[in-house]
Parts: sequence; C-alpha cells; structure tokens
Amino acid sequence: MGKNILLTIAYDGSAFHGWQKQPDEFTVQGHLERVMTGLFKREILLNGTSRTDAGVHALDQKASFVSDVNIPTDRLARVINNALCGGEKGSFAKAPVRILDAREMPEDFHARFSCKGKKYIYKIKDESDELSMVFDRNYVYHVRERLDTEAMKTAAALLKGTHDFKSFEASGGNPRTTTVRTIFDADITGKDGEMELHISGDGFLYNMVRIITGTLIEIGQGKRSPQEMEKIIAAADRQAAGFTAPPYGLYLAEVYY
Amino acid sequence: MGKNILLTIAYDGSAFHGWQKQPDEFTVQGHLERVMTGLFKREILLNGTSRTDAGVHALDQKASFVSDVNIPTDRLARVINNALCGGEKGSFAKAPVRILDAREMPEDFHARFSCKGKKYIYKIKDESDELSMVFDRNYVYHVRERLDTEAMKTAAALLKGTHDFKSFEASGGNPRTTTVRTIFDADITGKDGEMELHISGDGFLYNMVRIITGTLIEIGQGKRSPQEMEKIIAAADRQAAGFTAPPYGLYLAEVYY
Repeated sequence: MGKNILLTIAYDGSAFHGWQKQPDEFTVQGHLERVMTGLFKREILLNGTSRTDAGVHALDQKASFVSDVNIPTDRLARVINNALCGGEKGSFAKAPVRILDAREMPEDFHARFSCKGKKYIYKIKDESDELSMVFDRNYVYHVRERLDTEAMKTAAALLKGTHDFKSFEASGGNPRTTTVRTIFDADITGKDGEMELHISGDGFLYNMVRIITGTLIEIGQGKRSPQEMEKIIAAADRQAAGFTAPPYGLYLAEVYY
Repeated sequence: MGKNILLTIAYDGSAFHGWQKQPDEFTVQGHLERVMTGLFKREILLNGTSRTDAGVHALDQKASFVSDVNIPTDRLARVINNALCGGEKGSFAKAPVRILDAREMPEDFHARFSCKGKKYIYKIKDESDELSMVFDRNYVYHVRERLDTEAMKTAAALLKGTHDFKSFEASGGNPRTTTVRTIFDADITGKDGEMELHISGDGFLYNMVRIITGTLIEIGQGKRSPQEMEKIIAAADRQAAGFTAPPYGLYLAEVYY
C-alpha cells in the first residue's frame, strides 16, 4: 500500500484544454500524469478535486495519487516541477503548470469527496485600456463600459446562504442529486477599473460562477437592479439569469478540507 | 497615389513567431497583412520599423502602408481592431495584437529609415514566486536568486554614450556597416523583486538588448563586477559579454521619429 499524496497545483488555463484527461487534447491532468509517469517509471493516476473547463485557471487545484515512489514527500514538488520544465533548472524554468506543495494524507482522504468547499475568483476590468486587452486577454474579462460596483456588491451579498441555485446551472454538467448549495461569502473587491468577484461555498453547479458573474455584470451595466438577484434565484430557471461570462477570467482560488 | 498611413501596434509576442512575415509561421506582419487585405479588399503590405524576434513583445511597434482605402484615418484603428477580433465587438474582443493609433504622414516618411531611435524595456523578477512563474512566464524573465540592483544600475550607466557595441551583437542579424551605436539612456528601475531595464538609443544590433540584459544579470548575481562593463565594451568580442537573456522578457517600448 503506497502513501496517499495530495498535491497543490497552479496552472495557467490558457495553455490547456481544461483539467480532465481527454484523448486528443492537451489537458492539465493528462500532462501531469504523462510527465509523472515518465519521471517515476510507473503509472501515475491523479484524482483531481475540480474539473476546471478549458481556459479556467487554478491558483490552488488539488489532486491526490497513491505513491510508492522512493522520494521524500517534502522533495516531491521540486522534483516534479523540474520534470515539468523539461529538466531545465533554476532561472530557465518555464512551464504553465507547477506543483506548489505535496503532503501525505490519511489513507481515507479523498481529494474530491473530502472537499468541504471551494473559493473562486473572477477578474474583470472595466477600463478601455488597449495594452491591457493585449497582454491580459487570457487572464481578465474586459468590459468596455464602466460598471456600478456598488450595485454589484449589493447583488453579490444576496447570494449568501443556502439556496436552490438552479437558475445558475448550465446544462451539460454531471448529474446532480440537488441544486441546493450554500454560499459562504460573495463580494466584489477592487478599484481603478479592476475588480474581482470572490465567492466561496460548499459546492458549485456547472458554470455557476460564470453565470453569476455574467448576471452581476448586467447589474453593473444597469440592465438589471441589484434586488433582481432574489427573483432570479427564486425563479429556479436558467433563463432568468444573465449571460455566461467567459472562462478566462475565472480562477479556482482555494479548496477547503 | 494613396495616403502614407503610420500604425502604432501593440502585441503579445508569445502568440506570434516574431514580426516578420514567413511562409508557414504565424507572425504579426503576416497576420495583420492577411486581416487588413481581407478587410479592405486590396493587397496591403506593411513596412515595419523593427523585426522583433519570436516571443518579443511590442508596446509601440510602428508600421506604415500606402492606403487608398475610403475610411477616415481617425476611424482606421477601430475598424482594423474589430477585424482582428474576428468581427466580435465590445466586451468580447480578444486578440493578441491591436492597433493603438493610425495617422497620415508626409509622402517621404518611412517607418524604418525615418526612425531616430528606439526604447526597449526588459522585465526581470528575482523572487522565487511559483504563482508568478506560472502566470507571468511569457512576460517576465524569472531569476531564482536575488540580484544586486545597485551593481546593475552602475553597470547600465556605463553603457551610455557612443561606443562600438560589437561585444553585444549576436551572429545571424542583417549585415551592418558599423557596430557603433549611441545609447541615450540605460537604467534599472523597480522594487520588491520586480525590476526593469529601460534602454534607449539610436539603434540596436541583433540581440543587443538581450545580451546586455544577460550581462547585467551576471553582474547582479555577483559573477562580474559592475566596472567590468567597460572592459566588455572595449573587447569588441561577443565572448567577452554575458549570456543572451530569453526573448519573452523583452518589450519594444517606444520608437522615436
């Protein structure tokens, strides 16, 4: 019986076709498993916490694997990172995914089922800055008009608590037994044309953060009032909510155990 | 006889195989000419100021073309930008190259030969920040150890003035009649592990800024003294200088006319 190792992983989603392994696509899971299997000379299978979509970034993805590798756990991150950089060392390292931490967990720990909640960040810029549109285009969602951040804050606060979030679920996700979720916190922060939605909860439906973001942007644009958020939740109907904001502004920011 | 139009162009070099048009490579010039030719329904040929290498960014590239296009010059940038975004408008625009400005110039103006000088910026981080290594990997050169920025400032100042910069010329560039150039200014700015080399001059040899950066980094690492910069210049020998810093930290920042 090998050790149950939990990895903390950061990646630039613009370089990958999402987390989940797929036959002919460059995915984070597929890439990590291939590199680690080559490095450790035995098949490595990763059990990831969150199946981030293509273009979505991670500051704190988690994935576990069973390891009988003869390397001390506190050196694992460095060893894998060197392999991810193609063996190049030190200053020349350049890779779109890196291991931030590796630690041994109890035998019954499961990266997905033991997860108590997650936090996401969605980054928005509402200034028409051409240079930023060139260099941040994969990392921030650019909105041309000024958004009313106070209205967005008010609406975000209405998401807190336990609700049926069916209005914010896209079709195409995994089957769910319930669409009720608890949002621990939801807030808009930022200044000078840059803002971030910070939202944490015990779980999220398919595309839920992106649909919430799209709805908040429509509120910021004045197309909807902040108070409408309550009606949108009560409708339990995807048609009631706003558009789905694009993946590239979204970051998986924290996984709670 | 058409108008002589000068474009100011910004691009993310990580998306392109350099400026110059090449058969089978996605280049800035090739992409712009293709999109503009399709948009204006006539062949557009761009005359660019600087042939930036693959991975090198531009905040202020210039390129001219002869235009008999029936669109007011002050609307050209917007029209081309919409076409560069595949016709998508407003919030959804996402492209690695954008036109910042378009203006009519005198008939005898030439984007390259009328150029009086250029400014480059080279971005370096010397903090071991894994998240930044993931998300800034195409935009900043990461050095693992702390650099002595004061030593680098002292050495950079020795570059100012008119010198033979043969030590800082890579092979493979265009034939030169002389390797003497005048550096107007060279300085290191920044704080908290982020620094920038700002260097301006009347012209630069092939890979000159990247070799100067590599040499300054070796000085910052304490492998060379700042005063050695004078000897390196005097040697007029590529072997005397430091390594060639990678392209992705380099930005064409300004073109002087």
